[in-house]
Amino acid sequence: MIQLPQINGQSEVPLYRQLYEGLRDSILAGALKDGDRLPPTRDLALQLNLNRATVSAAYALLEEDGLVNGQVGRGSYVQNKPQLESREISFSTSRPAEELFPLDEVREVTTEVMRHSAAQVLQLGSPLGYGPLREFLIQEAIAEGVFDPNEDDLLITSGCQQALDLIHKALIGPGGMVHAEEPVYPGLRNAFQRALTVDANQPGVEAMIVTPSFRNPTGYTMSLGERREIAEATRMGRRLLIEVDIYSRLRYAGEALPTIRSLGAGPQALLLRSFSKIAFPGLRVGWVIGSKALIGKLATAKQWTDLHSDQLSQAILLEFSRSGRLDAHLGRVLEAGRIRLATTLETLEQVLPQGSRFTRPQGGMNLWVTLPRGCDSSAVLEKARREGVSYLPGRYFSISTPMNESFRLSFAGLSPARIVDGLRRLGPLFEEEAKIASRYQDPMPEMAMV
Amino acid sequence: MIQLPQINGQSEVPLYRQLYEGLRDSILAGALKDGDRLPPTRDLALQLNLNRATVSAAYALLEEDGLVNGQVGRGSYVQNKPQLESREISFSTSRPAEELFPLDEVREVTTEVMRHSAAQVLQLGSPLGYGPLREFLIQEAIAEGVFDPNEDDLLITSGCQQALDLIHKALIGPGGMVHAEEPVYPGLRNAFQRALTVDANQPGVEAMIVTPSFRNPTGYTMSLGERREIAEATRMGRRLLIEVDIYSRLRYAGEALPTIRSLGAGPQALLLRSFSKIAFPGLRVGWVIGSKALIGKLATAKQWTDLHSDQLSQAILLEFSRSGRLDAHLGRVLEAGRIRLATTLETLEQVLPQGSRFTRPQGGMNLWVTLPRGCDSSAVLEKARREGVSYLPGRYFSISTPMNESFRLSFAGLSPARIVDGLRRLGPLFEEEAKIASRYQDPMPEMAMV
Repeated sequence: MIQLPQINGQSEVPLYRQLYEGLRDSILAGALKDGDRLPPTRDLALQLNLNRATVSAAYALLEEDGLVNGQVGRGSYVQNKPQLESREISFSTSRPAEELFPLDEVREVTTEVMRHSAAQVLQLGSPLGYGPLREFLIQEAIAEGVFDPNEDDLLITSGCQQALDLIHKALIGPGGMVHAEEPVYPGLRNAFQRALTVDANQPGVEAMIVTPSFRNPTGYTMSLGERREIAEATRMGRRLLIEVDIYSRLRYAGEALPTIRSLGAGPQALLLRSFSKIAFPGLRVGWVIGSKALIGKLATAKQWTDLHSDQLSQAILLEFSRSGRLDAHLGRVLEAGRIRLATTLETLEQVLPQGSRFTRPQGGMNLWVTLPRGCDSSAVLEKARREGVSYLPGRYFSISTPMNESFRLSFAGLSPARIVDGLRRLGPLFEEEAKIASRYQDPMPEMAMV
Repeated sequence: MIQLPQINGQSEVPLYRQLYEGLRDSILAGALKDGDRLPPTRDLALQLNLNRATVSAAYALLEEDGLVNGQVGRGSYVQNKPQLESREISFSTSRPAEELFPLDEVREVTTEVMRHSAAQVLQLGSPLGYGPLREFLIQEAIAEGVFDPNEDDLLITSGCQQALDLIHKALIGPGGMVHAEEPVYPGLRNAFQRALTVDANQPGVEAMIVTPSFRNPTGYTMSLGERREIAEATRMGRRLLIEVDIYSRLRYAGEALPTIRSLGAGPQALLLRSFSKIAFPGLRVGWVIGSKALIGKLATAKQWTDLHSDQLSQAILLEFSRSGRLDAHLGRVLEAGRIRLATTLETLEQVLPQGSRFTRPQGGMNLWVTLPRGCDSSAVLEKARREGVSYLPGRYFSISTPMNESFRLSFAGLSPARIVDGLRRLGPLFEEEAKIASRYQDPMPEMAMV
C-alpha cells in the first residue's frame, strides 16, 4: 500500500520520468523503506492509468540508480540501505573512507595468506582467536606496556561490538548496570540496552564504560588528568572499567595520550580495540585485553555465542599489520583525515545558523553539532534526505535526555568535495529550521514577582 | 604448581628425554592444560637437580612436537588445544576432513572475489548479510520450496551457533524454555544453557529444537512420518520450531528426506543452515530462513551483537557455491564420508566389548557408542589420551540423565587408516573397563518374596 506519485498528463516531463522521480523521492525520503516491495508493473499501470511499459521504464531507471533490486518473477524491492547510502552524501556512519582502501595490497596479502595458511584458516579454530594473530597482538601490547604476560590475556572478537555483547553477557550480572556518559553511540546503547545508565551513583552499577580518545559521537578526548583519575578510581573500587580504544590511532593533531589501562587501573580494567576504524570494517576483527580471569569468562561466552571469529580475516589482518602495510595505510588515512576534519570545521563555520555550536576534535571520525535552541534535527533530516544528504539525529544517542537540537556528523568517510557539497546543501535547511524555531520559542519566564 | 615427572638417574634413557616424555604425557593426559605455563628452565632445573641445558633440551622437543609454545622472555606455555588435537587421533570434534579441502580452488575463488568485490567486501555491510550471497541463498531456497518470497526472509549468521544465540536472545522470553531431546550437542547446550529442557510439557516451553537429519551426537534421522507430525504440531500450536539442518547434505546412503519446514510447518518454523559442515568451518557463515517477522527480530539482535558477519568469507563461499565448486567438493566429501563411516562401523564391531551398542547413521559426522552397563567413558578417556586418542564422553551431551556409559565418536575428520588405528587403540581400554564394570556390578535384585 504505497502512496502513489502524482502523475501529470499535461507536463512536458515524460510520464515514465515523472513516475521514476516520484518513486525515487519516496525512497530517499524514507517513505519507501529498505526491503519494501514495489507493486507489480501491471498493477501500478492499472492504478495510475499508464501503459505497463511506462512503469517498467521507471523501474528500470530506479534499478540503474541502485535504489531498487528487481528479480524476474520475484518483483522489485527497495534496495539495501548501505547501497543507498553510498549514493547520497552520508554523514551518518562512522566508517573509514573506502577510496583509501589499498585494494592491491589487500589482494597481495590475501594471496600470501592463502598460499601459506589456507588449510589452517579453513578448519575449525580456537574461541580465543587465530593463534598467530593473537600472539602478534600480545607482543604489540607488551611492547606498548598494556599487557603483563603473567597476569593478562587477549581474546579476539568479531569487532568491538561483539566485545561489548560478550561483556554484557559474561561479566554483568542480571540486573547489573553499566554507567556511560551521554550522548552514547548506538552500538553501545544496543549492546547494553536497559542496563545502561547515565547515573554513576545508581544502585547496581557494576561497570563504567569510557572512550577516552575521540569519543563517538562527540569526538571528545580525555585529558591525562582525567585518565589518571579514572585509573585510580578503578584500582581502588570494585567496578569494571570498559575502555573502548578504537579511535586513538586516528589522531590528526596534538599529542598521543596513554590508555587508562596503562595508568595502573588494575585487574578490573578491560581494553577494547579493533581493526574496523583503522583498516576495514567489513572484516570483523577486534580484541579485548584483560586479566586472565576476565578473559577466561569472555572466551567461554564467545564459544557459546559463535564458536570463534572468522579466521581468514584474522590471518589477512595479521599479515597486513606484520608486513608494515597497516602503518603505511594509516599514514595515508591520517593525512586524508586531517584535511577532511579541517574542511568540515571550516565549512560548518560558514553554513551553520547563528547560535549553533559544534565540537572540535583532534581526531577520530565524528563531531557533534548543536543547532540553536528549539531546532529539531530529526525534522530537518527528512528534508535533507530529499537533498541527498544524511546525518544521525541526536535522539539516536540519547539515554535520558532528548537531544533533538543536536546531531552527529561523521566526516571521515567522505571526500573534502563531498563534505563541502553536503554541508552547503544542509546550511539553508538549518537556517530555515532556526527561523521557525525562534518564532515558536517560548520566551524565558520572567523572574516571578512575589 | 605442576606435578614433576619422575627422573631416574640410573636409567639408560637420557635425562632430557625422560623429562620430555614425562611432560608430554602430562599434557596428553590433560594434567597440564592449554595455556598453562611451564616453570622457567632455571627453576625446574633446581627442583629436579638437573642441568639447565637438560631442561631446555626437553622444552625444545615439546616445542618441536607443537605441544608447547615458547617465547623468549615470556616463558613456555602449553599449546592451544586445536593444534594439540591435530596431533592425536581425535574422534572428539564434529568437523570436516581438512585433507579434502580443495585449497587451490579456494585460492582461485579468493583471487576472483578480491579482483571484483574487494572494496564492497572491506566496507561496513548490512546486518542481514552480504547482499549477493543472501540473494543467492534465497533463490536456492525458493527453488527447493522452503522459501516464500512474499512471506519469508533470510538472515546470514556467523555459523549455526550464532543463529542459536540470536534466537535465544531475540525470540525466547525471560524464563522461557526450549525443548530438546537428549543427548544434546554441546553447542546447543551452551547456547541455551538453563533454558533447555528435555520435558516437552514443562511450563514455559516456547520452542522445540530438532535436528531431523543425522543429529549430533547420535546420527539419528527422523522418518518422513515423524517430520510430518512435527510440522503439523508446529502449524497447529504456538511454539517455535528451530530446525537445525546442517548435516542433511552429508548423506552417504539412503534417500533424502524433506525438511520439516517444507512440510507445511507454518510461520513459526525456523530453518538453520550453515557452510561449516559441508565446506569450511573456519569461515563462519550460516543462515536462518523464517517469516519476515521473526527474521526482522533476529536481524535487530544481530546488529546489536556484532553489526554483521564477516563479508570476505561470505563472498568467497558465494563464489565457491555459484561456480559449482561446492557441489564438486561435496561429491568428494560424500565419497570419503561413505568409506569413513563404513570403516568406523566395521572396526567398532571388532573392537568393542560384548554388550556394547552403537548407532548406525546413514550420514553426518557422528555416531553414539554405549559401552556395557557400569562403564565410565570419562575414566577411559584419560587412558585413551595417553594412547594418543580422544573422543567426547556422554556427560558433555547430558541435560538430565548422566550418560557415563556412552560417548560420541566423530569420524568424518579422520582418514580410514587413522580411524582403524584409533579404534584399535581404544578397544583394549574398553575391554578392560568392561571387565572392571562387570566385577563391581550390583546384581539385579531378586523378586521380593512375600
